[in-house]
Amino acid sequence: MFVINAQRLRDRMAALSGCGRTVAGGVMRLAYGDADREARALVMTWMREAGLAPHVDFAGNVIAPRAGTDPSRKPLLFGSHVDSVPDGGDYDGPLGTLAAIEAAQVIAEQGLALHHPIEVVVWANEEGGLYGSRAVSGQLPAAELRNVSRSGKTVAEGIAFIGGDPARVHEARRAAGDIAGYLELHIEQGAVLERAGVDIGVVEGIVGLREWTVTITGVANHGGTTPMDQRHDALLAAARFIDMVHRVVRGMPGQQVGTVGRLEASPGAVNAIAGLVVCSLELRDLHDATIDSLYARITDEARRIGDETGTTFEFADLMAAAPAPSDPRLRDAIARAAAALGLSSRVMPSGAGHDAQAMATLGPMGMIFIPSVGGISHSPEEYSTPEAVENGGNVLLGAVLAADEALP
Amino acid sequence: MFVINAQRLRDRMAALSGCGRTVAGGVMRLAYGDADREARALVMTWMREAGLAPHVDFAGNVIAPRAGTDPSRKPLLFGSHVDSVPDGGDYDGPLGTLAAIEAAQVIAEQGLALHHPIEVVVWANEEGGLYGSRAVSGQLPAAELRNVSRSGKTVAEGIAFIGGDPARVHEARRAAGDIAGYLELHIEQGAVLERAGVDIGVVEGIVGLREWTVTITGVANHGGTTPMDQRHDALLAAARFIDMVHRVVRGMPGQQVGTVGRLEASPGAVNAIAGLVVCSLELRDLHDATIDSLYARITDEARRIGDETGTTFEFADLMAAAPAPSDPRLRDAIARAAAALGLSSRVMPSGAGHDAQAMATLGPMGMIFIPSVGGISHSPEEYSTPEAVENGGNVLLGAVLAADEALP
Repeated sequence: MFVINAQRLRDRMAALSGCGRTVAGGVMRLAYGDADREARALVMTWMREAGLAPHVDFAGNVIAPRAGTDPSRKPLLFGSHVDSVPDGGDYDGPLGTLAAIEAAQVIAEQGLALHHPIEVVVWANEEGGLYGSRAVSGQLPAAELRNVSRSGKTVAEGIAFIGGDPARVHEARRAAGDIAGYLELHIEQGAVLERAGVDIGVVEGIVGLREWTVTITGVANHGGTTPMDQRHDALLAAARFIDMVHRVVRGMPGQQVGTVGRLEASPGAVNAIAGLVVCSLELRDLHDATIDSLYARITDEARRIGDETGTTFEFADLMAAAPAPSDPRLRDAIARAAAALGLSSRVMPSGAGHDAQAMATLGPMGMIFIPSVGGISHSPEEYSTPEAVENGGNVLLGAVLAADEALP
Repeated sequence: MFVINAQRLRDRMAALSGCGRTVAGGVMRLAYGDADREARALVMTWMREAGLAPHVDFAGNVIAPRAGTDPSRKPLLFGSHVDSVPDGGDYDGPLGTLAAIEAAQVIAEQGLALHHPIEVVVWANEEGGLYGSRAVSGQLPAAELRNVSRSGKTVAEGIAFIGGDPARVHEARRAAGDIAGYLELHIEQGAVLERAGVDIGVVEGIVGLREWTVTITGVANHGGTTPMDQRHDALLAAARFIDMVHRVVRGMPGQQVGTVGRLEASPGAVNAIAGLVVCSLELRDLHDATIDSLYARITDEARRIGDETGTTFEFADLMAAAPAPSDPRLRDAIARAAAALGLSSRVMPSGAGHDAQAMATLGPMGMIFIPSVGGISHSPEEYSTPEAVENGGNVLLGAVLAADEALP
């Protein structure tokens, strides 16, 4: 059984955190910014140390291929990203990226002959909305190149800045069946593994999500002169809506989640009854049917709350992403790799989105989670133990080797 | 029985609306602004037509006195204000101001001899927080002269702009007992009279109010990766809080009101569980004891909601104003004036604040309401019928004459 060089992996993670380090101890490595470009250059030097020859594709993704023994095979991809959210942490992205390089380096150092060509990948602008992986999977409409990214650059400008070619982004596209499979190691970003005392999460799939903007219209009025029974209070209606969403989502067995995270009340004065509330609704589950059924129940109940409070509810679609199930052969490869290392594992959904969901449209996809301490992510406090990082790297290496056998 | 010249009152109200008229059909007559000063100059010309000699006191209030027959009597004051909220209406302030001038003009034209000296008053900057009347009642701390008013000027600059003297504002102060009484006609700003089909409201008192800033602290987290049972959702806690406030306030007999009108949720992202909510709580009632008992119940229940949702509630005092009961002799004078005119009346609280509450600390106070169509106020849609305006003017005149007899 082959294992990674855990010290090398940890050293590289520490070095990578130097790119965009903030005084608060987090990282500010916004996609297409200076720190992002610097991190990508550093990662490419490590790819070369691993015997790989990286290049940047037209969408700005770093791709480092290595030939396999069977020229008829499609490539096996693994990797993650290095861009961060504003004030992000050290693990979200870098773990999967540097563990992928580490796995490739062990394969090279041990002279392991894989049937499949492999490609270590660093996806561009994951945090902004999976731009690099969506370009490759053909899910990036050209109009989105005009979006302004958090770095201040448009996506087109950003792609050029990191060595891609915005005019040729469409050429980065691959077709379904063009890859043999995709594996990604990532921190869980929740506290399920930690609470259960389990070492490794075998991702069952990435949940689908639907998001709505909910507009609740009442009548703004004076909070002193309007008796309680003559109000059309949009904030009271919103309050009952939020509580109801929580009740409905928890009222079904399963791992579905529902969140109202954004809310604005107008006119928003201490002494005025709110006439208008705009809030968000997000539902996530591994199965679209569950989301549909929750949404039907929620809109029904919202109508009742509207009647009760003299307000009206309107739901406008904001975003939707289909669930991306993982491949049973890769789940099995991951679980067996964990077991061979004496690590416990459990099958679980990924509640967060990942580049893996774009790759799932091109071929078999598998994802490995390690515990996040306290479930904290997108924060300078994001942390996973050195042991968990080592476990994750070893499981990724084992899963790549097993996948090379299991996948055609 | 004497009655007002209703056509003259309506004509002056229409003319006054020309000061600060907006394209939306409302008025923008912010205190201390150009339109406010223009309106005050216009009002002073009408005071002179009514045989009065107006002057501006050190706090910027317009005072138009007329002698009485008994030199030992303190003055009987009546009036209102002419400043408006942004995008205000035609009635809030102007009705009471111009009806007061109209009453004084009828008294002059009919050669009526009153025991008391009278003073028609236009209070400065009512909408910004009763600045003129608080200066007169000794409730305006000097520090508040530095506040920036909606006109952009500080209160001190504004007072100078309209002819007062910020350095001598304290000299505008009167002591308790310095006035024989105060009467004010105003639109109801609610829909109680209209719904009940009653012509005149006899104000029982101006409600007291207490306002708090409520801070609800949970834990911000990822809306996808955090299971429902592991959340500390500050917005869910806020939702239950708002619903509970409504239930507690309605759960007691009486006319008390409670409002949560302002709410901000952080981080405020569609896919993030809110870690922090800051919202307002306002309670109003004619009796402080009712407010205290509601608040005790609300904080108790908030603690329970905090336990339930894994969040904490903190309440910080924001503002308090004591209830201002009206004088039974003036309530009686108003009710009898209405009855003599064949008008129906009912005793009711004023849920809104008025200059009358400052005057209530100096002497007997009485307020007259007329119906607001649809209960709409602080809006270009603010409207009272011509008949209601005439009724109000006549009741004010009748109440002034009755008060002259009833008050020492």
